[in-house]
This record gives sequence, structure tokens and C-alpha cells, in this order.
Amino acid sequence: MLRPEINELLTETGPGTPMGELFRHYWLPALLAEELPEDDGAPVRVKILSERLIAFRDTSGRYGLMDEFCAHRGVSLWFARNEENGLRCPYHGWKYDVTGQCLEVPSEPEASNFCANVKLKSYPLVKVGDILWTYLGDPESQPPLPEYEFVHVPESQTYTSKRWQESNWLQALEGGIDSSHVSFLHSGQLNTDPLFKGSRGNDYNKGDLKPYFEVTDTPGGLFIGARRNAEEGHYYWRITPWVMPSFTMVPPRADHPVHGHIWVPIDDENCWVYTFDYHPVRPLSDDERSAMRAGHGVHSENIPGTYRPMANKDNDYLMDREAQKRNEHYSGVKGIAIQDASLQESMGPIVDRTKERLVATDTGIIKARQKLRKAVIALTDDGVVPPGVDPEHHRVRSVSVVLPHDVAFMEATAEDASVRPGVAQTTV
Amino acid sequence: MLRPEINELLTETGPGTPMGELFRHYWLPALLAEELPEDDGAPVRVKILSERLIAFRDTSGRYGLMDEFCAHRGVSLWFARNEENGLRCPYHGWKYDVTGQCLEVPSEPEASNFCANVKLKSYPLVKVGDILWTYLGDPESQPPLPEYEFVHVPESQTYTSKRWQESNWLQALEGGIDSSHVSFLHSGQLNTDPLFKGSRGNDYNKGDLKPYFEVTDTPGGLFIGARRNAEEGHYYWRITPWVMPSFTMVPPRADHPVHGHIWVPIDDENCWVYTFDYHPVRPLSDDERSAMRAGHGVHSENIPGTYRPMANKDNDYLMDREAQKRNEHYSGVKGIAIQDASLQESMGPIVDRTKERLVATDTGIIKARQKLRKAVIALTDDGVVPPGVDPEHHRVRSVSVVLPHDVAFMEATAEDASVRPGVAQTTV
Amino acid sequence: MLRPEINELLTETGPGTPMGELFRHYWLPALLAEELPEDDGAPVRVKILSERLIAFRDTSGRYGLMDEFCAHRGVSLWFARNEENGLRCPYHGWKYDVTGQCLEVPSEPEASNFCANVKLKSYPLVKVGDILWTYLGDPESQPPLPEYEFVHVPESQTYTSKRWQESNWLQALEGGIDSSHVSFLHSGQLNTDPLFKGSRGNDYNKGDLKPYFEVTDTPGGLFIGARRNAEEGHYYWRITPWVMPSFTMVPPRADHPVHGHIWVPIDDENCWVYTFDYHPVRPLSDDERSAMRAGHGVHSENIPGTYRPMANKDNDYLMDREAQKRNEHYSGVKGIAIQDASLQESMGPIVDRTKERLVATDTGIIKARQKLRKAVIALTDDGVVPPGVDPEHHRVRSVSVVLPHDVAFMEATAEDASVRPGVAQTTV
Repeated sequence: MLRPEINELLTETGPGTPMGELFRHYWLPALLAEELPEDDGAPVRVKILSERLIAFRDTSGRYGLMDEFCAHRGVSLWFARNEENGLRCPYHGWKYDVTGQCLEVPSEPEASNFCANVKLKSYPLVKVGDILWTYLGDPESQPPLPEYEFVHVPESQTYTSKRWQESNWLQALEGGIDSSHVSFLHSGQLNTDPLFKGSRGNDYNKGDLKPYFEVTDTPGGLFIGARRNAEEGHYYWRITPWVMPSFTMVPPRADHPVHGHIWVPIDDENCWVYTFDYHPVRPLSDDERSAMRAGHGVHSENIPGTYRPMANKDNDYLMDREAQKRNEHYSGVKGIAIQDASLQESMGPIVDRTKERLVATDTGIIKARQKLRKAVIALTDDGVVPPGVDPEHHRVRSVSVVLPHDVAFMEATAEDASVRPGVAQTTV
Repeated sequence: MLRPEINELLTETGPGTPMGELFRHYWLPALLAEELPEDDGAPVRVKILSERLIAFRDTSGRYGLMDEFCAHRGVSLWFARNEENGLRCPYHGWKYDVTGQCLEVPSEPEASNFCANVKLKSYPLVKVGDILWTYLGDPESQPPLPEYEFVHVPESQTYTSKRWQESNWLQALEGGIDSSHVSFLHSGQLNTDPLFKGSRGNDYNKGDLKPYFEVTDTPGGLFIGARRNAEEGHYYWRITPWVMPSFTMVPPRADHPVHGHIWVPIDDENCWVYTFDYHPVRPLSDDERSAMRAGHGVHSENIPGTYRPMANKDNDYLMDREAQKRNEHYSGVKGIAIQDASLQESMGPIVDRTKERLVATDTGIIKARQKLRKAVIALTDDGVVPPGVDPEHHRVRSVSVVLPHDVAFMEATAEDASVRPGVAQTTV
Repeated sequence: MLRPEINELLTETGPGTPMGELFRHYWLPALLAEELPEDDGAPVRVKILSERLIAFRDTSGRYGLMDEFCAHRGVSLWFARNEENGLRCPYHGWKYDVTGQCLEVPSEPEASNFCANVKLKSYPLVKVGDILWTYLGDPESQPPLPEYEFVHVPESQTYTSKRWQESNWLQALEGGIDSSHVSFLHSGQLNTDPLFKGSRGNDYNKGDLKPYFEVTDTPGGLFIGARRNAEEGHYYWRITPWVMPSFTMVPPRADHPVHGHIWVPIDDENCWVYTFDYHPVRPLSDDERSAMRAGHGVHSENIPGTYRPMANKDNDYLMDREAQKRNEHYSGVKGIAIQDASLQESMGPIVDRTKERLVATDTGIIKARQKLRKAVIALTDDGVVPPGVDPEHHRVRSVSVVLPHDVAFMEATAEDASVRPGVAQTTV
């Protein structure tokens, strides 16, 4: 249960808000690389942390992300012409390069050098993996680029999708670090989804509905360990890393690719869910890629040409009460991603955390909120760089493992929970 | 003409408002029984008096109505599994019975008895007739169940429908107790609608456009008498009972079934219109039922699978100017219910009563507002139980009758305006 | 760049606002005459300067424009019956004539003369040309009717259309007096649009992207002269008259009909764009009329039965990136009117003028704002009748002309810029 002011503190990320300032210390996904597929292609509207921006790729292949609106009279540059290394406003031909610098104001004498003083607010936009990342903070404090493993393995080993979620980012993140709901909400998928089935872990997941949580602080965030009963004398441990502010990984199953998410606030009532799958040591198979594209695993099937799921709020997520009855889909909603989205959106755009009633299995959520809050205060009061900014913090993995009762999971899995190039994930 | 603060007083019914408190003293229709047709069927979202609730019918056939959102982290229980005498939240399996009592929190040790202390706000939900009634007030003050005649005659003699109206409840009620507009708005229907035609009363209705109103206080509300000229030396009286807060009956015509409405606030800008037809002494014929289902009489034709009328605000109520010209439909809109809805919605979500200009034929409306206001004040200041709570007050009938000039309608119709089992309605 | 309070002053036109008072000194287009095509036809909802009104044409062909809502209980008179020289509310039959005077309240005794004291707010509605004009101000100050040339030439010589624009009126007007954007935004149309092509002026327009502006005060508004290089020793002048508050004309091309606009605030976030084409001395050809109806020139192709353009905000104006690449449509949007609308709407409902950065080619806009502001202050402080009210001010024309370098455009074109019956426009 949170006080209302803490709920606001953690959920509001627009310019000038404390959490907004925190988010402005990280590289964040702004688009999928596929959204800017070619030089001089169509510019794309981007809203992130409540700022309205325009993204484009110029003649030389450079990426730009800047204020959506022309400095002259405020026309949206979504209508701009992307030509000769710049975006040209179609109203009066003002032209900007990828840094937002105005290159040309046709009506002004060239000698006047008028446009030298015109520059749109702009942010860096850098391709790392399948994602175009941006950094909305003070250029002085710009950290090195992200080092998450999924964007650094060879292209053949990784796949990323995204979907629009109609809720605040935090309740989406809280779903991602909540290792207990899988035994309920996703139970119908464990043994049927092509990207989940065939793991011994699924049986442990379904066999023990009272996981015990151990949560450990890490330099970048948390390791959230969920312990369930396994064979005699053994526990099944699932370890979910959270790297601040919003990177998480789902513990692996069998030899399936490993997956995870990054939640990015669009504004206070909407977020993008970037969803990845990768295998540390082998290419994804054609079947795996097909399954991902079809919305299996933690991906979603989107309306063609958009990143909005087919099953969404406006159609009650295509609820199928018969499938619910048969327990084919535990909640009646199809697909792991949409199962999560439907429930998280059903809480309202920003869930009222003054009314919740948390239990032991919410330990990960409680600690994550505490860590976020502490980091916001340390940043606001003392300018302390928050956890997760240092790319060294990104080099984590999720783990699933069976250990004897008397083994401490953190010590036992310290190496497994780190990125080890050329070594497969630790999985059951 | 009302002062703005009185308009607010009478129209706002959310928790904590004076009129909301008044409404919370009555049994109110929450759903049609057909909306929960089977044990363990789909739960249904219910919004009433601005509260968001979930209704369901459990394995044993018991009805429940409770807070829509899980006590844990706020997921909508619309997604819940209805199984083994309870509603189970699909996120983490918390389970509630029809009283809102939490029965199970799977992650917690059973010995902890954790869930004993978890209880959702809940209200009784009771089937009487074709309606599931609820009572949102203090359990200490819960009155006996409704005794309106239409819910107590044998099932073969009664039919109930409902429709969503996009306006405040009060302007809808005011249409219901306004016996003068029938001569205009509904005049095209009087002799053609299968549930209206063939009554001598229709000719009186159309022949005298200056009805004289006599309104009499009753223990539960009002009797609103509208007098029109009939044959030499006689008056045609139509008597509309209003039982507080929002039950009314239309005076009967010939041997047609008698009809009426209950208006229930969804929130301050929407209401449900429950619409019934019944005959006190005979079954409804197949033709009558078909006509009701098709939206004749005071019923509406709804979009299949919903309770929204086909003809609605978004399609200008399928206005037909040619039918208006021909006087087939006086306003160009088809069907008595939609004729009312279209005009009442056109006033805006909450009509601004500071601008109105009432006349003698609005006497019923004026007295109803006064009675409501008086009851709210007596309740707020002195805790006086409002009229209409006592089920004895429900035992009223509408009447249509021709009387000699020198006969006082109230004395003459005292018996006719009461429920008399086995005796048909008094009608012309 | 404007201070926020000046932006509000110039953009808000509801009752009681200073700019709203200014607008209430002029005759304004309320509807096209084609919207009330026959006596006793369907009444039409009109919203203008944030007032909700109903327009109709009675049995005798008189036009009425009055409060949309019945004086009785607030029903929208859009549902009214238009019969026997009045609009009859279908709820209780109250009837009003074109002046808003209540003629009949059927429920009241005729002798009471009740309705003599019931009168809806109403405004004059007068057909001049293809437009029904209204005046929303003090009847004492009502000026003579408009004398714009396009509404006074023979019917065969003129054509008027209208479209809904989802933005404040001022940013639409500013597009209309901005003679510099044609060389960019509309450049694809100059030589292809049937109502534009074949003028030498098009080449000057495209050849000189640095027009020089000279703006001259006129009694009714401004003459905005845009000068571009022509042949050796000559300038090409385009002269755009603006008559307050929102009448403008586009300078002519070759012998094409001359066109212009009147922007009328619906509310602060929407406006009507009335668009006319006329030829001072000859009938429009069938081809010209067909082209206008098809949305060529400055007209738009609307959704049938409405005045909303087919290409609109909800479908991203049917953006065609390929056509943008080919420079067939400079911005990728088809049609001059929609090119303007798309960019002006993209600025947001009310553009934030505190962020703009104006240049020399915005001189016309700057002077227009100054003139509007001055007029508002003079009206508010001293009751000075604003420019453009006197119909003498309406008798202006746009001009396009090639002049030697040493000739002052205003002196040289003084006659050309005035209405001269029987004399063609001055055009290149």
C-alpha cells in the first residue's frame, strides 16, 4: 500500500518530474530499428517520457530524434520531406539535420546566417542491436551505450518486438518482476506454447503455488529469486534480474531462447513494451522466429502496420470464456503477453496503489519500488547517478536452476547470473 | 427553473452525495436475471450510482455483487474464473465468494488465515421477478424486498427489458411522469403500435392537447392525474403513479399489458432504463412478447449482445425526416422508447435546469422534484427513512378511466390504483 | 513570438471574450445556402463563436437562426418539426418563428398569452450570394450587409464550398495571408491543378523563394504585397487583401477564377473554412465547376453528406510518401486545401505562439495580429467600431501584376485592388 504522493512520485515521468529526471539518466529504446528501415525514408512520430519527437534516418544513414514541431510556426515535421541529409518542413522549406540544427531557411538571405541560431531540441539516436536508443538527459552526463546481452549477440541469435500498452509503465514493470503469477495466469501456456513447453521447470511452476521469495540487491537493481519445491531435498530456483529503471529478464526454460522486456513510458498513461528473445550461443531457428512473429512466447500479434495488439482494450482482448472454462487459457485471454496486458490495463491507466494489499510473493515489487524511490531521492537531493546507468550493470542473465536445500542461491548462481560470452544460459 | 445547487443536489448520486445517500436506501435493479443465466457463467461488469462492481452467479446458484477490483493489486475481476463457488482472480488466484469474502490466497500458508481478513466491498443481489436487485446502503437499514406487482405476477404474465440511456437519471424520470408529451411526441404511435392501438383513450389523448393536472401525495411518492376532455360531461383521467425514487407506470390502454419503468443511475451522465410490461390477470400472448422483443411499445430494439439501442446518439437515432413529414413518427424518430431517449439525451448529459421555463402541465415534475428534495433534506438532517422504501408503497397501479365531471379522481380510483391480485387493471 | 495572454486574446471567441465581442460586430457566414435548400426542410445545427444554434427555413422561405434548445425543458430543436411557418418542438409542441418568438404553447390557454413572453435568443440569417450570413451582435449596431464581390456577381460566375477545419480560426487565417508558402507546399500543384496552371506567375513563384513583403494598411484591413523577381528590371507582385476579421483573397493566375476564404470560428478549437471562386466578368465553365466540386483549386473533396474532408486528421490526410518523393505533392498530401489544413491542424488545436520564430516573410501575419489586437483594444476601451464592418471595406480584389523595379505597387495597383464592376481582375 503506497501513500498517494509516493504513487505519483513513481509513476509520473514527464519533463521536470523527479522520476522523469531519473529516466533521463538512461539510454532508452525509442524505436525498433525496423521503423526506420531506409535512408531518406518516412519520418516517425515518437512520444517518450511525455515529449513529442520526430525520428528520421537521413541520406547518409544517420539517425535523428528531435522536437516534432518546426521552429518557425509549429508545423509537425511528420509531414516533412526527408531529403539530402535533412528534414525539410513542407510549409516554408526550413531544413534541419539529425542534430536539430537548422541548415536552411529559404526565405532568408544566405549571408544573414539566420539559421545558425535556429536549432531544435534534439537527442542522440543510436542503433544497438535491433533497437534505436536515445538519451534524453543532460549531454554532459551521457553514459556509454547499453550492454545488455540481447543487443550484442549476433543478429541471428536475437529477435525483438514491441507493443503498445495502455497503462502506466510501473504496473507493467511490476508484472515483469512478479514471478508468482506464472503459475496461475500463464499456466495454460507452460506446456503448450512452442517457446515454453518441454521444461521440467514448468512442472515445478505448476506444482508449487507458494513460491518463497529471496530478493538481493545488485549494483544495477535486484536479483529476485523465487524458490519452489522440486525433487526430494531440492528447490527449483527462478532468478529474475531487474536492472533500473525497467529492464527485466524472465528465467529460462529448457533450451528455449531467453526472453525479457524493457518498459518505456510514452506518457503517464501509456508505455511501450520492448520484448526480446535471444539465445547466448546459437541462432534462433526458423520455427522459433515464426512463433515469435505470430505472438507466441512473450510476444504479441499486432494489428498490421502498427504496434497495437490485435487483442486489446477495445475488443475486451478477444476474451474466450469457453477457453477459460477448459483452462486452455487460464483467464480466457490468449497469449502470455496479452494475458499480462489485459490484467495490467484493467487496473486503470495508473493503478491506485493506496488500495492494494501486498503479500510475501510481492517482495520483489516492494523492493523495486523502494529502490526506485531511494534512487530518485538520492538523485534529487545529492545528484547521485542512479543504479543501472553504468553499462557494467547491464551484463546480467536470468537463471533457472535446481539446487539442494542447503545451498544459497545467490552464491551458487553468481556466475550463471552474469553474461558469459560463448556460454549458454543456466536453465532447467 | 432550479437554482444550480438544487440541480446538482438532485442529479448527483455518487458515494457521499446527498441524493446518492437517498438512493442507497432502496433496492435497485442491478441487472436483468438473463444477464447471469447460469451457474459458474461469465461475470458481468455493473456500474451503479458511480460504483464499479462485478456481478456473478456461483456454482450453487447464489448471486454476488462486489467491488470490481481484486483486493491484492487491483485487477478487474471481469477476467476472473467463476469456479467452485467463488470468483478467482486470474493474476494470482485469489478467490472470493458471493459476499466478497476472500476464501483463498494460494501463495499464503493456509494456517496463516490471511484471507479471513480480506473482504471486498459487496452488496446483496437478489432475484425478484426478471430482475436482480441490489441494495447499496447500510446493512442495518436494509428494507424488505420490492413488492412491485410486475415482479410478483406469474412469469408468463410479465416481460422486462433494459436499455442504456446517455443522460442523467432525473431527466429520464421526468419524461416518465410527464403525461402531456404523449399527445405530441408519441402521437404517431397511438393508433399503430401493436401494444398501444385500439384504445378509446388514444382518441382522448389526441383530441385534447391541454390536459389539466392534479397531483396527489402518496406515502411512497405521487399519483399524477392528467385530465382530458372525453364525451359530454365526462373527463378522461390518466393516473401515473411515481414511487420514489424512480419507479413509474404508464396508464393502461384497452386490454394491453401495462407498462412502466425504473430509472437507475449508472453515473451522473448515464442511466439504465428498466422497462416492464405485465398483465395482472392473463399471460402475455406470443404476439405481445414478439412485439416487445422487437422494440414496440415502450421497449427498444438493442444492438445484439448489448443493451444499447440500435438507434442512438451516434447515428442521430436514425432520424427519418420523411417519416416526420408524413407524421408517421412525430419527431422523425421511430419507436416510443427512442423518441423519449433522443429528446432527453439531446438536452445534454445533465440538463441545465436553471434555464427551463415550466408550465402547468409540468406540475407532476415540479412536485416530484420537491418531494425528492424534501426527502433528501429530511434524510440528511434527521435520518428520516424516505418514502418508497417500505414495500407497502410499491403496491400501486396506473389507471385510465372516464369519469363524470363532478367525480374526484382520487376518491373514485383509490382501489383501482392499488394492487388487487386477480383483478385486472382499470383501463379505457 | 507572442506572450501567452496575447495568444489567448486573439484566439478565444466565445461569448464575453474580447475577440468574441469583436467578431460579434460583423456579418459572418453561418451556412451555405445549399444547407437549407427548401421551405419547411430539415433544421440544421450551427455552432458559431461557441454558441449552439439551430437554423431553418420556414414555409414562407424565411430563414431563422436561434438557440438550439427549446425554452421549455431544453430539448434540441434539431428534432423539431418545421411546419406552418415555425419550428415545433416535438416534445410538447411549443412552436417558434424565425425570430425565436414563441407562437404557440399548446398546453396553455390561448387567452393567457403565455407565449408572448417566451422568445429564444435569435440572430438574423440573410442570404447574400451562396451564403447565409448572420450577425451575432447588438441589434442596435447591426451594419449593412456584406458587399464582397463574390456574393454579388451573377450566380453563373461564382461558386462557394465549405470545409471543417480542426484548428483555431487564427492559424487558418494566418495560412491564408501567408503568400510565401505557395512556393513550397503547393509547388506541385501550380502547373498541374486545372484551376492554377498556365500562369506565368507560377514560374515566378517557383523561381524566387525569397519574396520580399510590403504590407499596407487599408481602412478594412491590409494589402499584403509579396514581390518576387520577374524578367530583367521587373518584379512580380502578388497582392493579398485581408478584410477584418477573416476575409482574404488569393492573387489571381492567368484568366482562372479568383479565389479566397472566410474563416469562421466554430469554437476555439474548430473553424469553418468558406471557400469561394468567382470570375468578375464571365461565367464559370462546366469544367471549372466540376474541378471545384472535385476538390481542385482551393476547394476540398468532402465526405458525402458532410463538410468534413475525405482526407483528414483521422486518416493522416491520406499521406502518400511516394507522391512526396516524386514531388507530385510536395508534402505527400493531395490538394491545396488539404495541404494547408493538414499542416495547420498539425500545429495542435491552438498553436502555441510563444514558441514560434517569425521571419521577414511573416510580415503580413505580424501586421494582421497587430491590427486585430489594436482593434480589440479600441473596441473594448473606447467602443470604436472595428475595420471591416463598413461594407465599403469589402470592395477589394487581389491582384497579380508585373511592374518595373521603380514602380511602387500600391500606387500602381490602387484601382486594380478595388472592385470594378464589368472589369476583369488584374492578373498574370
